[in-house]
Amino acid sequence: MSSYSAPLHEIRFTLHDVLGVEATFRQLGYEDAGRETVDAILEEGARFCESVLAPLNQVGDRHGVGYDADTGSVTTAPGFKEAYAQFTEGGWGGLTAPAEYGGMGMPHALGLSMEEMINSANLAWGNFPLLSHGAQNALLHHGEQWQREVFLTRLVSGEWTGTMCLTEPHCGTDLGLLRTRAEPRADGTYAVTGTKIFITAGEHDLAPNIVHLVLARLPDAPAGSKGISLFIVPKFKVARDGSVGERNALRCGSVEHKMGIHASATCVMNFDGAEGYLVGQPHRGLAAMFTMMNSARIGVGMQGLGLSERALQNALRYARERLQSRSLSGAKFPDKPADPIIVQPDVRRMLLTCKALVEGGRALAYHAGLQFDLAAHGASEQARKDADDLLGFLTPIVKGCLTEWGVECTYHALQCFGGHGYIAEHGMEQLARDARITTLYEGTTGIQALDLMGRKTMQLQGAGLKVFLGMVQRFCEQHAGNAALAEFTGPLAAKAQEWQALTMAIAGRAARDPEEIGAAAYDYLFYSGYVALAYWWARIVAAADASSQPESFKAAKRETARFFYARLLPRTLLHKAAIDSGPGPLLALAAEHFD
Amino acid sequence: MSSYSAPLHEIRFTLHDVLGVEATFRQLGYEDAGRETVDAILEEGARFCESVLAPLNQVGDRHGVGYDADTGSVTTAPGFKEAYAQFTEGGWGGLTAPAEYGGMGMPHALGLSMEEMINSANLAWGNFPLLSHGAQNALLHHGEQWQREVFLTRLVSGEWTGTMCLTEPHCGTDLGLLRTRAEPRADGTYAVTGTKIFITAGEHDLAPNIVHLVLARLPDAPAGSKGISLFIVPKFKVARDGSVGERNALRCGSVEHKMGIHASATCVMNFDGAEGYLVGQPHRGLAAMFTMMNSARIGVGMQGLGLSERALQNALRYARERLQSRSLSGAKFPDKPADPIIVQPDVRRMLLTCKALVEGGRALAYHAGLQFDLAAHGASEQARKDADDLLGFLTPIVKGCLTEWGVECTYHALQCFGGHGYIAEHGMEQLARDARITTLYEGTTGIQALDLMGRKTMQLQGAGLKVFLGMVQRFCEQHAGNAALAEFTGPLAAKAQEWQALTMAIAGRAARDPEEIGAAAYDYLFYSGYVALAYWWARIVAAADASSQPESFKAAKRETARFFYARLLPRTLLHKAAIDSGPGPLLALAAEHFD
Repeated sequence: MSSYSAPLHEIRFTLHDVLGVEATFRQLGYEDAGRETVDAILEEGARFCESVLAPLNQVGDRHGVGYDADTGSVTTAPGFKEAYAQFTEGGWGGLTAPAEYGGMGMPHALGLSMEEMINSANLAWGNFPLLSHGAQNALLHHGEQWQREVFLTRLVSGEWTGTMCLTEPHCGTDLGLLRTRAEPRADGTYAVTGTKIFITAGEHDLAPNIVHLVLARLPDAPAGSKGISLFIVPKFKVARDGSVGERNALRCGSVEHKMGIHASATCVMNFDGAEGYLVGQPHRGLAAMFTMMNSARIGVGMQGLGLSERALQNALRYARERLQSRSLSGAKFPDKPADPIIVQPDVRRMLLTCKALVEGGRALAYHAGLQFDLAAHGASEQARKDADDLLGFLTPIVKGCLTEWGVECTYHALQCFGGHGYIAEHGMEQLARDARITTLYEGTTGIQALDLMGRKTMQLQGAGLKVFLGMVQRFCEQHAGNAALAEFTGPLAAKAQEWQALTMAIAGRAARDPEEIGAAAYDYLFYSGYVALAYWWARIVAAADASSQPESFKAAKRETARFFYARLLPRTLLHKAAIDSGPGPLLALAAEHFD
Repeated sequence: MSSYSAPLHEIRFTLHDVLGVEATFRQLGYEDAGRETVDAILEEGARFCESVLAPLNQVGDRHGVGYDADTGSVTTAPGFKEAYAQFTEGGWGGLTAPAEYGGMGMPHALGLSMEEMINSANLAWGNFPLLSHGAQNALLHHGEQWQREVFLTRLVSGEWTGTMCLTEPHCGTDLGLLRTRAEPRADGTYAVTGTKIFITAGEHDLAPNIVHLVLARLPDAPAGSKGISLFIVPKFKVARDGSVGERNALRCGSVEHKMGIHASATCVMNFDGAEGYLVGQPHRGLAAMFTMMNSARIGVGMQGLGLSERALQNALRYARERLQSRSLSGAKFPDKPADPIIVQPDVRRMLLTCKALVEGGRALAYHAGLQFDLAAHGASEQARKDADDLLGFLTPIVKGCLTEWGVECTYHALQCFGGHGYIAEHGMEQLARDARITTLYEGTTGIQALDLMGRKTMQLQGAGLKVFLGMVQRFCEQHAGNAALAEFTGPLAAKAQEWQALTMAIAGRAARDPEEIGAAAYDYLFYSGYVALAYWWARIVAAADASSQPESFKAAKRETARFFYARLLPRTLLHKAAIDSGPGPLLALAAEHFD
């Protein structure tokens, strides 16, 4: 079985030394989020993840979820319910929720650390609270006051869980096609009818009630995406005074059999005139969904990061233990029958790739998380706007890149095990199977790429990119005289300039050819991701040098940064070449002549 | 469920138009391998794969193999036994085996087409005959005459199956560590004792006897890889006169639970003084294993190709059927509720990547297969040596690249399905899980890279590379005046030159630093793979232009080649940058400071 030990030292180094969150939290008015409290919460969270969730990871994979076709009920894997009870008792579900609804009111940047650890420990289990979190956000920003009091408080406490019901059999990416309908009734409620698929945690036995947030069309709705409204549709009816009534007219029709996350209940949900309440304005449901999308997408990015971290830990352990062959430059451990495979350059290539992507990705993601806090509590309007622009820009990068890197890292880690990696017993193949969902749900990588290139860069005229480039410039200026950092700041400044020029060039061509955006998007996403990591790796080295960490720690950061600059940053060469080749090579072949 | 239709048109185009096998087969004395016969065999093989094997692919994944701990017996998935009987009846197991041992004596290049189709149809099933094939080769080249008559003929007929027993729990790559021992007995047989793991088809119910080829140490064996001998150890004892006796002292101890190829029996085999016969010379077992390694490794490369082909077929169908969103340049099918996703540039990027890797990879692999025939039957010693050098050089490229491309193509194809790709029902996730073994067994990708860089390039002083570069040069000269081909031959000639210079540069540095080889190997493997494909894509376009194929077919080849040159060949930029960075960034970090 694969093991997991929460990387508290790295998490704290990232939060405190690299991002300096202590000062930021104080400025933003998070008075209860001092360093000691933050560290204590991390320690307690780590304990819960390591001792309660991690041991259930393989159990969940083997048991999956049970489905009873007669009742439509779903049974979670052994131990899941008890773990959820402990999670609720610890107040973890409301870690970042406002105190007025029963939450702990902690910063989102800290919440992401907890998400990372949960995902490392047990991704499938983590999907139950993750979706509740999405529903909380929707109600917090768009619900009426009574809806918040009745539903939000119970989601924050964890008494109930939530879902997001968007997808239908014929519509995923293109929500404009959705058909589920909502008929107004005399009492102000709505009768919701339709079939939703891929509903995570749509049915389960962890909590007595489930709050479905459902996208549906009102009778007078315009066609397409501008005619979609959002509804609360609970499993058991709930009156406005909060009292719980009879079973609502909805049912889980089946659960999907999937490549991975077996213990996550992926449900077909049938609504048959189920009683619901409208959330927010009619026909504005999609806008409400978009509000919470940043948080959900970054949450999935954290899944990629969490799996990568666990995969790396296990590959590293195996590479140190497995004795096989000798180093090409002579035996490194002549007293042993063979050298541990960690002496092999190619094994190091895989381990260092994971290490560079995980540690750089952590800084990237936590920094994005900090923008939630800055956007909500920043001192000036400009500061809040900058944070919001930056968050919008970083969201598809975190989601798109960290999930693809999650697939890559779980791949490398499995590969380090050789044939043993393919055997279920070692648990590495589960990590690879679980990782595979992350590039699909909450918008595929292609959709993230279009969001970054089309919406966040073109439509918003690069507002987020400007903020990011400003950060890079300030950092390079600040360290202009730092000879020890020049090996990074030099190439970084050049790449930042190239990033800007590349963006302008795409924009110029897009004005003439609308296909330019779609043709460039994927490679622009990854180009951006690698340049962003180049920035973070330079900052990580600077932060380590300035810290009181031991010399070996500082050296490890520097060597990993060198590896990143030498062997991963050159991936930008490929992405730039692909972008420069334009839409032609992608579009010339007629669809009917593909085979 | 994913479907499969044998791409006979493409296979024939590759064999006949691109490789011109008809003339080569004639020159080599394959008198029965005229075009009509070849085409008829392909058609019959396609029918068998499509109608018998393909329908069992998902069945096998769901059933896996049964294991009875009381008897140590293994039951294959429903239908597998009947399919094997049909395979044997059709004589497919001996397609390329010499007629004197009951084979059909067909060229290996044709055998590879059949392997491709089997792997597309049902990879897990295909592992049973694949391993028999390996055992056949070992006996053909190293067995005594009576061993060939007794064992080889029954492997060729398919009456019995074979295995290759190499790996032990503590030794995979490094066979020098192996411990299984063989004690000589008075009657000339040997008592073989030890535990072997990861034995494909080690036990099953397809045939009444199984011929294990086992690596073991004689009592007087020197330590390390120079003290290993090869033995025939049948499941039921076989006398020298061919008569079958009692059960031998060996037993399947368990079967592994794996990420994929569930229907392939991966066995732990315990030998407890089992009766065996020495094959070839004492202590020369590893050399005997290497003889058949080219064929087994190219066989696994074909698994990557077969899975890629099937994945692409299904992704293409889905991309044409799935209606979602509109093209960014305006609706392409305004009468439909949305455009099929094949209009999206990013979906095309994924489909074209698969198409370019599959069709280019097919030419690369079949051409490597042709070297078996040329090495055995070439007109002159020089021709046979060139073919052998080229085969040795191409083997790690075919194995390493086609399997990693198999992982990549099944990834892209699944991604084209969005969330539906993750659901077992569609069958795409099975292809991805099955593909994942191919980069691990028969030597991981890292081992292929070391074989190419260390042995095939450095030790043999680039003999195979020289032959390949000669082919490229002749092709470019031949088409020097061909303006329609200049867009490919120009960059190809430049890349070929860079390939040569890069090889020389690595060799120069390796003379000073033995770690250079290991640090460059992985990237050199892929650099070589992409330049090799650049050559094949140029030849594919030339062959299409010169053929009587319809214009739309010629255009499709040209546009796919353009895609390859614009978007895949630039991957060489990354690999070259990684090689140029040398061993430093991989080796500087001390093993104890990795975390």
